[in-house]
Parts: sequence; C-alpha cells; structure tokens
Amino acid sequence: MAEIKATNITWHEGHVTRAERGSLLKQGGATLWFTGLSASGKSTIAFTLEHALVQRGRLAYVLDGDNIRHGLNKNLGFSAADREENIRRIGEVAKLFADCGLVTVTSFISPYRKDRDTVRALHLAGQLPFIEVFVNTPMATCEQRDPKGLYKKARAGELKNFTGIDDPYEEPLHPEITLDASNTTPQQATVLLLEYLEKHGIIRGL
Amino acid sequence: MAEIKATNITWHEGHVTRAERGSLLKQGGATLWFTGLSASGKSTIAFTLEHALVQRGRLAYVLDGDNIRHGLNKNLGFSAADREENIRRIGEVAKLFADCGLVTVTSFISPYRKDRDTVRALHLAGQLPFIEVFVNTPMATCEQRDPKGLYKKARAGELKNFTGIDDPYEEPLHPEITLDASNTTPQQATVLLLEYLEKHGIIRGL
Repeated sequence: MAEIKATNITWHEGHVTRAERGSLLKQGGATLWFTGLSASGKSTIAFTLEHALVQRGRLAYVLDGDNIRHGLNKNLGFSAADREENIRRIGEVAKLFADCGLVTVTSFISPYRKDRDTVRALHLAGQLPFIEVFVNTPMATCEQRDPKGLYKKARAGELKNFTGIDDPYEEPLHPEITLDASNTTPQQATVLLLEYLEKHGIIRGL
Repeated sequence: MAEIKATNITWHEGHVTRAERGSLLKQGGATLWFTGLSASGKSTIAFTLEHALVQRGRLAYVLDGDNIRHGLNKNLGFSAADREENIRRIGEVAKLFADCGLVTVTSFISPYRKDRDTVRALHLAGQLPFIEVFVNTPMATCEQRDPKGLYKKARAGELKNFTGIDDPYEEPLHPEITLDASNTTPQQATVLLLEYLEKHGIIRGL
C-alpha cells in the first residue's frame, strides 16, 4: 500500500454525486422492473442479463425472491397489505441500488398495477430511470413449464391466491419493453435489453 | 455500439458470483457499521470515507437517515419494536449491498447492542465482513456541537427518548474500530479505515 496521508483526503458532509459514480462505473443507475406470471421466464432473463453486463465490465444486481423474501421481507406474509408492503420495500431498495449507479434488475411477479406504478413514481421523483419489462409469456406455456409444480398445486386447490389462477395479474398498460419467453430465448431477450440500455444512454460503449 | 449477438451471451439461472464481482470491482463487499451518539461525527466520517474510496476508483455507498428514514423505513416510528425493525431492515439492505461487492457504510446511532449483534450475525451467516465502528466521541463534545439543536430540545424536554439523555446508548463491547472525533479529524479517521480495509484484504492496491 502506498502511504495514505490525511492531507490527501478531503472532508465531505454529503454523498458522492451521481455524476462521480457514473464516471467511475461507466453507466447510469436504473431499475429494470420485470413483471409477469410465475414461470414466465423473468428470473432466467434477469440472471442472463446480470451476467452479460458483469462480463462486459458493468455492474448489475438482481433482487429476487431468494435474496428478499428470506431477508428484508421475511416478516411479511401474503395478505393484501403485506403484498403491497413487499413491493414497496423492494421498490425502495431498487431505488437505493439505482441511486448508487447500478443497473438493478428486480424479478417478482408483482401482479398489481398500482404497486408497480407506485415504484415507478418513486424512481421518477428521484430522477432515476424505471424500465418496466413485461414478460408476457402465455399462461399455457407457463403452466406447461411449471418447474416448481406450483400451477399443479394451485389447480388442485392446495395453493390459494395463486396469480393467474385465483388471484389476478394486472398487465402493464405501458411497459417500456415486452418480451415473450415462448418465442424469445433468454439470450435474445438480453440482446434487446442491452440495446435498450445503450439506446437510452444508461450504458455507453458496450 | 458493436453489434451484440445472442450467441455471445450465455444462459444463466443464478447470480453472478462474489469472485466475479470482486474481480470487476477490485474489492470485496463488506459493511462498516458506524454507531455512536447523535453529533458524534459518524456521518462526516462516513461521507469522507465514501468520497475517498470513490476517488480511488472503489465503490462505496452510505446508508443514512436521509436515504432510509424517508424511504424504506418511512412507515416506522420510534417505538421499541419500530426501532428494532428499523435496524433490522437497514442490516438486511447493507447485507444486499455488501453481497453485491460494495463497501457499505451505515451511519445510524443504533444504540442497542442486541440489534447491532443481530446485524453482525446476519452478515457472518452470509460470509460477509461486518466491521463495527464505534464513534466514541465524549457526550460533552457531542452536546456542545449539537448542529441540529437536538440536545438542547431534549434537555428542555421537548424531545423524548433521546439517546444519551433519556434513552440508553449501549456501547459496543468488541468493536473492530474505535474513533473519537474530539481528537481525530474525519481525514485521520478515514486513513485508519482505509488502512483497516486494506489490511483485511477487503480492498487491495490502494
């Protein structure tokens, strides 16, 4: 280590600016909010995109059930109020990551339009891009895939309030991007997303 | 933009590994958890450290009252249960940032030992370093500084449950680092913190 001298350090009372982070990371912060039915392919696209960005030297992070439901939101259930609070908290965390300059990718069914619109408004108020990605895979395809056997359980009545079966999925009215995993591979979807990020100046020089 | 081809993208079903992020960021994720009385100097040291790291090409992010209390934790008050939940959520978010490879710096009074220990355990369970930084500035100094006039209000009885006045501050028993802003400048404190991060392999080649 080169000797660190206190005289080389400047006193600060406020956050590093977004411009300073952008210059360091070669990207701007943004949230890509994936929404769609269970087994629609959200997570596979999200992780494929995360890897593609990191391989290209850019920083992305996926928030999903695995790192949220067992952590930050482990004290929430599935009541209407808890579902709303679940999405609210994820939205706030996504905003913090985006504020820090990351391409944040969230992968949750997030079935209610009002909750997604609240997160969008939160980002826009913070002057951070919110990109709603509607993974519009036909329900028949999702149900046929059913990797966790959830549709089967829901059809058998063993799982209540399952989105698409006995709980509504409210489609986005104006998503920035719509994908359909029944006719688009995760790689093809990732290309479209990277092109969107570059076109909108979030990432430059890919 | 060079043409992006789907064939150049690899399908993934799981998160980017910490090793991959560490290689990209030239650092490992960790949480520096500042604790200390109001006006002890936590935030100034935290921001000075954040700037020093970013100026050196490393990624750090401060979680503090400004970006947490008005956002993620805006639905929490100051009851015992809410204070505990406040710290729990901050701990979970710090862990997510550390998992993403950032040097996360939290700046909250966090007066209760049990709550801090819970966050420590959470990090250790996730194999992420938790560095408790006790900003042990004498209360007389804090009260003399009193930039927001909070001690004055608390002494006048206008502010209830104020840490150090009519609510306890439980000092860390085994903090990794202890600082005293009455005899250490934010720059000097930052040098000590950078040296700690380098010595413990969290950041290399500063």
